Amino acid sequence: MNIYKDRINKLQSIMKRKGIDYYLIPLSDYHNSEYFSDYYNAIKYLSGFTGSNATLVVSLDSAYLWTDGRYFIQAEAELSGSGIILMKQGVKGVPKIEDFLDTNMGEEDTFCFDGRMVNVDTYERFNNTILKENPNRHMCDADIVSSIWINRGEPEAHALLILPEEYAGEGVDMKIARIRGDKNYKEADAFIVSDLCDIAWTLNMRGSDIEHMKVFYSYLIITNDDIIFYADKSRLTDHMPYLTKYDITVREYDDIYADLSSKDFYRSHGIYKMLIDKSSLNTALYTIINEYTTVLSSKSIPASLKCIKNDREIKNIRNAHIKDAVAMCKFMYYLEKEVIETGGDGSDTKAKQSKECHSEISLAEVLYKFRREQEGFIEESFPTISAWAENGAIVHYEPTEKTNKVIGRNSFLLVDSGGHYMEGTTDITRTFLIGDASSKMRRDYTLVLKSNISLATTKFLSGTGGKSLDMLPRNVMWKAGYDYMHGTGHGVGYLLSVHEGPNSISIRGKEDVPIRPGMVTTDEPGLYLEGEYGIRLENELLCKPFSSGEYGEYYCFECLTLVPFDRKCIEKSMLTEEEVDYINTYHKKVYDKVSPYLEEDQKRWLYSITREL
Amino acid sequence: MNIYKDRINKLQSIMKRKGIDYYLIPLSDYHNSEYFSDYYNAIKYLSGFTGSNATLVVSLDSAYLWTDGRYFIQAEAELSGSGIILMKQGVKGVPKIEDFLDTNMGEEDTFCFDGRMVNVDTYERFNNTILKENPNRHMCDADIVSSIWINRGEPEAHALLILPEEYAGEGVDMKIARIRGDKNYKEADAFIVSDLCDIAWTLNMRGSDIEHMKVFYSYLIITNDDIIFYADKSRLTDHMPYLTKYDITVREYDDIYADLSSKDFYRSHGIYKMLIDKSSLNTALYTIINEYTTVLSSKSIPASLKCIKNDREIKNIRNAHIKDAVAMCKFMYYLEKEVIETGGDGSDTKAKQSKECHSEISLAEVLYKFRREQEGFIEESFPTISAWAENGAIVHYEPTEKTNKVIGRNSFLLVDSGGHYMEGTTDITRTFLIGDASSKMRRDYTLVLKSNISLATTKFLSGTGGKSLDMLPRNVMWKAGYDYMHGTGHGVGYLLSVHEGPNSISIRGKEDVPIRPGMVTTDEPGLYLEGEYGIRLENELLCKPFSSGEYGEYYCFECLTLVPFDRKCIEKSMLTEEEVDYINTYHKKVYDKVSPYLEEDQKRWLYSITREL
Repeated sequence: MNIYKDRINKLQSIMKRKGIDYYLIPLSDYHNSEYFSDYYNAIKYLSGFTGSNATLVVSLDSAYLWTDGRYFIQAEAELSGSGIILMKQGVKGVPKIEDFLDTNMGEEDTFCFDGRMVNVDTYERFNNTILKENPNRHMCDADIVSSIWINRGEPEAHALLILPEEYAGEGVDMKIARIRGDKNYKEADAFIVSDLCDIAWTLNMRGSDIEHMKVFYSYLIITNDDIIFYADKSRLTDHMPYLTKYDITVREYDDIYADLSSKDFYRSHGIYKMLIDKSSLNTALYTIINEYTTVLSSKSIPASLKCIKNDREIKNIRNAHIKDAVAMCKFMYYLEKEVIETGGDGSDTKAKQSKECHSEISLAEVLYKFRREQEGFIEESFPTISAWAENGAIVHYEPTEKTNKVIGRNSFLLVDSGGHYMEGTTDITRTFLIGDASSKMRRDYTLVLKSNISLATTKFLSGTGGKSLDMLPRNVMWKAGYDYMHGTGHGVGYLLSVHEGPNSISIRGKEDVPIRPGMVTTDEPGLYLEGEYGIRLENELLCKPFSSGEYGEYYCFECLTLVPFDRKCIEKSMLTEEEVDYINTYHKKVYDKVSPYLEEDQKRWLYSITREL
Repeated sequence: MNIYKDRINKLQSIMKRKGIDYYLIPLSDYHNSEYFSDYYNAIKYLSGFTGSNATLVVSLDSAYLWTDGRYFIQAEAELSGSGIILMKQGVKGVPKIEDFLDTNMGEEDTFCFDGRMVNVDTYERFNNTILKENPNRHMCDADIVSSIWINRGEPEAHALLILPEEYAGEGVDMKIARIRGDKNYKEADAFIVSDLCDIAWTLNMRGSDIEHMKVFYSYLIITNDDIIFYADKSRLTDHMPYLTKYDITVREYDDIYADLSSKDFYRSHGIYKMLIDKSSLNTALYTIINEYTTVLSSKSIPASLKCIKNDREIKNIRNAHIKDAVAMCKFMYYLEKEVIETGGDGSDTKAKQSKECHSEISLAEVLYKFRREQEGFIEESFPTISAWAENGAIVHYEPTEKTNKVIGRNSFLLVDSGGHYMEGTTDITRTFLIGDASSKMRRDYTLVLKSNISLATTKFLSGTGGKSLDMLPRNVMWKAGYDYMHGTGHGVGYLLSVHEGPNSISIRGKEDVPIRPGMVTTDEPGLYLEGEYGIRLENELLCKPFSSGEYGEYYCFECLTLVPFDRKCIEKSMLTEEEVDYINTYHKKVYDKVSPYLEEDQKRWLYSITREL
């Protein structure tokens, strides 16, 4: 019997015993984190599905897995034999999960999930859909997965570090004071910080509990007089003097459930109103808090503070980008010498016969090696996308042993990668030509470059949101009949997560958050031709004041990323004078900043590819 | 004694007698129309203020008038001596009307207005602010102005006309069927059409009860079986066969209050749920309807239908634009021969000594004359803005005898005007150089032109809203450090109102209504330098399908307006190749379409100003 079918069956037996008609399993951790360890991945254990977006719904006789277009083919393969029905999100006729439940649940059915795995936003959505007009339906909170999960292991637990003020730029006392001074905080008596990046930022601490995110599992409760930090005490021994300095009380991570279930806790801390962040607080904690005190909610306060990088952070981030650019330029030089000149696939007569073929994965490893050589490098900020030719047209592609392609000729290699450094986090995409370009390839590359430049060079009035700004780069592609079907950019954290809100550049964004000085946001338009190739050019942009006048404050962007575009692919006749100037000025800056860290031959090569168009 | 002080005093005596503490007088008619006759302008009668935006609030001992920045100086002058306090909208520290009332009203005070003058949206806003936390305050509906209004006169009442299907493109039966088929209609049993443009569109009838709007005072109630038309019967005698053909029951305009106050009306028409449009229905009717039946509200259904022009309308509108362009080109030729060549202010030696000086008003009259000569011309679609030099920097300027400027040299004349023709409504702005241009003037003109072109030449995916599209033209100005502080464009009606929703191109729009094929929207970026000059270039754009592909449906614009830009002001070095091509193609089209209607010398002149750049 298929092992997944067996596991689902076991789950259904428990459901039957407990009177649960529908059980829902989301894909995240107890903090709604973007990445998380396998410890939390019950979907992988129960269904075999390994994609990064999924929700599993189990009824007494069936099981359904929702995922999006990126994973349809993979899900079909991985679910095969399990009996689990694939629900293709976004495909016409496929209901949303809450609508599916509402339609299928009987009048007195019970719907259940592990309250720690579902955030308050989602809980309320389910509540509104499923229970609103069916008062006899039940919703309950139970973990029925752990009991059948054999060899689950333990959550990862690595050493924590304190980020000195030379990196953080602001002390914990100031950060706490700013949180307490926030107008939303002032409406309440306490704020529970549940987003892991928010906690790490507030405490100037970093961890490695989640790959690619510099965070550690914890909670923080800030009251008017106290700061209570729930985390793994055994890893905090060395840091107690630091925490004591700020009068931070330390409790075990799991103690938060008991603490918040005690009337005394609220009374002794003077908590009558508790502020929460619905996007990261889980339903189990929410339900408890809601029982003892009035709950207020707002966007996370630390999120709105940390998106504005301080002067020290900005100074550091600029350095991180130089380091990242040195690694990227060395990688480009390697590509030039070891792949392009020798013939990437070994077909060229000049190819070194002893060498193995270059592949997407092998090149990602080469790049990783160059990044590791940089001082202060900690880890990759996300899994490198190294995509040759048609694989580049799959927007969220990540090479695996199964899909790994050998590098050929006359197409594009798209590389989207980044690093966490002590001095900040980077995210860059470059698309490299291997071999010769057709005129269509040059045109497409230049279009994406124009699109990228249109955002990088804009000046805009204060108050302008990322939803509006998205129109500038997108329209360059639209006018040519293309669309990149993803946002133009996302905020970038400082040694936290490579994706950080609330700033983003996206026409599809729910909110239109104004882009303000100090925000770092990516600029990554693309062009994807199924079965042919993908092109994406991504820089990070720092918003800065530009000028001030009778119409208000104007802002502009500084490009933080310092890596040349592929001049062989630039069709100069398609560029305006302003665009040519931009590229020349940018390339000169790249050479000036990066060349001091290169060897002589690399320097000469960099000079040759950054000279004026 | 100041007559306005006296009138306010009289109002306050009545207020005292009736127990009213605050009385509010808005500036509109009973349908929340954009324009309206003096019959409805109680503010002018009570305060002397003649601007187009105002609200008067009278308390027992004071009176306050809110207006916006366009009218601050004018209001100060006009209110002088009346004792009325000017409340400058948008100025820091000046409260909104509802907040002012909420702060100043006592716990048991009574707030009153003429319910016919306040739409439901506004009523609900007041209700939410003033009464929400003060259950002992009262709100009441009373007309206390009429009794003190001496020589008020009568509302205007002109003949009605039926718009034949060769102009309307769709019969009344089809329109009614489409309204009844709307999903919002289907939730209800009847729909009360209260917006005058919506009624005129639905019935294919036009009137002249309001200057610049081709409408007539009326209501329309559409039920599943009946159509009841409330209007001035005496003017409908000739049209009875037409109305009877569609089974339309005719009642007197004022009968609607009595009809809706009778239980029988609802019973006999099977109305249990009535759909209303909160933006145009007045509070008096709303209160009545609310008493007898369940009220549902939605955006006006005819508004969402009429914004998509049908094929016949589009064909007609193209013709209307040719006619309007002929008038505009003749006006430009007149400017060239009678103003520019001769020296506009008579200072030139070549000036004809017998001629009077040209002024903003005299030129507006010349333009009006050329429009009147066009077949099918009915009236100007709004008061012509003819603004010389620094007057052009006042965005909503309209020349009056007091402000009228004589045309001088070496500056810009901004002319924003339009016409109602049987074949549609036009709205165009051109800015003409009289004399010589400095390089700054040429740069500024070219910037506005580039801004205009950026919208006109875009291609965009279906679903894109006017809020997003606004970024394209606006950003051209922003990058140069300017902003035009008004929307880029508005929808244009068909022989109804020159301003028609829901489509608009505006970053400040509340909603982001997708621009769809069949919509006609203006493209009118500008640049305003206080004390110097204003530049605005306005074309009307028709949205059309462009292409269809894997990313979805792409739309583009056809420029309906056919009037040359001022080539003397175009700095070609600032234009991209694409922009030069656009202008050349546009100018060629202008010549081809307009020249057949010009005399030989005009034709030669048009050729010379539309030749390739």
